[in-house]
Amino acid sequence: MKTLNLPIKAVLIDLSGTLHIDDTAIPGAVDALKRLRKTNIPVKFVTNTTKESRRFLHERLVGLGFEIKPDEIWSSLWAARDLVASRELQPYLMLEDAAMEDFADLGKQEGEHEYNSVVIGLAPSMFDYDHLNKAFRLLLRGASLIAIHEARYYKRSDGLALGPGPFVKALEYAADCKSEVVGKPSPNFFKSALGDVDPKYAIMIGDDVRDDIGGAQKLGMQGILVQTGKYRPGDEDKISPPPCKVCPSFTHAVNMLLGELQKSE
Amino acid sequence: MKTLNLPIKAVLIDLSGTLHIDDTAIPGAVDALKRLRKTNIPVKFVTNTTKESRRFLHERLVGLGFEIKPDEIWSSLWAARDLVASRELQPYLMLEDAAMEDFADLGKQEGEHEYNSVVIGLAPSMFDYDHLNKAFRLLLRGASLIAIHEARYYKRSDGLALGPGPFVKALEYAADCKSEVVGKPSPNFFKSALGDVDPKYAIMIGDDVRDDIGGAQKLGMQGILVQTGKYRPGDEDKISPPPCKVCPSFTHAVNMLLGELQKSE
Repeated sequence: MKTLNLPIKAVLIDLSGTLHIDDTAIPGAVDALKRLRKTNIPVKFVTNTTKESRRFLHERLVGLGFEIKPDEIWSSLWAARDLVASRELQPYLMLEDAAMEDFADLGKQEGEHEYNSVVIGLAPSMFDYDHLNKAFRLLLRGASLIAIHEARYYKRSDGLALGPGPFVKALEYAADCKSEVVGKPSPNFFKSALGDVDPKYAIMIGDDVRDDIGGAQKLGMQGILVQTGKYRPGDEDKISPPPCKVCPSFTHAVNMLLGELQKSE
Repeated sequence: MKTLNLPIKAVLIDLSGTLHIDDTAIPGAVDALKRLRKTNIPVKFVTNTTKESRRFLHERLVGLGFEIKPDEIWSSLWAARDLVASRELQPYLMLEDAAMEDFADLGKQEGEHEYNSVVIGLAPSMFDYDHLNKAFRLLLRGASLIAIHEARYYKRSDGLALGPGPFVKALEYAADCKSEVVGKPSPNFFKSALGDVDPKYAIMIGDDVRDDIGGAQKLGMQGILVQTGKYRPGDEDKISPPPCKVCPSFTHAVNMLLGELQKSE
């Protein structure tokens, strides 16, 4: 494996599967994050979600014992909010109510403005013919299509269930347009989380070889794949170039990072 | 333009836009069909529909004055029925009630058999998250996906509305599979309508340059594009090779055919 480019100027960390699984922290992860914090390297938490507001994510992580500030959480939903705000869009939001919270302060007032964009997340209650048809007609009139992410499906307690991706593809095909994907693995997602930091000196730690590591490395970041969460043996061979480093867990990843930093002093 | 391959052993004719528009026959079309009938060349009527049963289509055409027998009508819905019957499939039908009629005699009994296929037409009342999720899970378990056709949208009285195509694409993406498209422009559709007739000696008359003419010519048939219905100037240049013949209307197409037959006697 490669040695890391130093100095390290930012570390991005995936949430589900890397720091926790559902409501359980990955063993050692709370302490490992504390030790990483001592280096004073800026940290951000990057996650693909279409329905959990930043406040909700923050509350869950703090509840698990992690030291995290709300504005260190960079979710695909929040990134979509940011994109809508920066372009001053009037979006038709295909989101569940719980996700609307992140858009609440943008001052959209139903009926007052013409929608000029469609923002689509995982919104089962809006994935019916009439709502999709409304989105389709907006796209025909030139609205832009913003996909929070494009997952094919997700795991639900009763089995696999459709993700937002299929409905994004349906609208793209219907209106003969292309969506702008906001979340991982879009390089822009990592870029916006990094701000001014040169990707060359930034690390991404995650359990999804394509969405976390592949996406980050496409931008020039250094990816560390952890073998927890959704990791399956052989995942490291699924992207080219392969992950910069592969570690058994977030704890091992932090220990390796701290070791390399120490060697360089 | 090319001269036609003789003898002509079958003529396939599109319905909407070629013989009639809504509830009005194209001027001269009823008489032209009568004159074509006198040649004793077998005729079939081929149409993409996902919701009108053969009985309904027949009643409408007879009501407009056309001499047509029910079994001369070859619709994409009927072709799907035929495919389901020939393969002895147990399909999960994503169709509106009016379309179910064509499948009524296939003896499917809800609950008794495991579905091993998904047949999808334009079924707004089934295009919601739960029904699509059910179809998705069947596909994951190995069911085949049969699309009656893949139209992006259609014209409704209140504007354009989503066709079955977007929902087919959604399921294909979700389950990482490919649908089998039954209707036009699928060459198999024309082939099944022709039966034993060599496509080289068969004619297709229609107003849709891609779905009617392009599809038929791909199978080796000879296409005659009529400039009624959805025809727009320049359509003849949209496929390669171009239509074998272009005629102002169905009447002109029949006159041209009869003229060529007479010359060859």
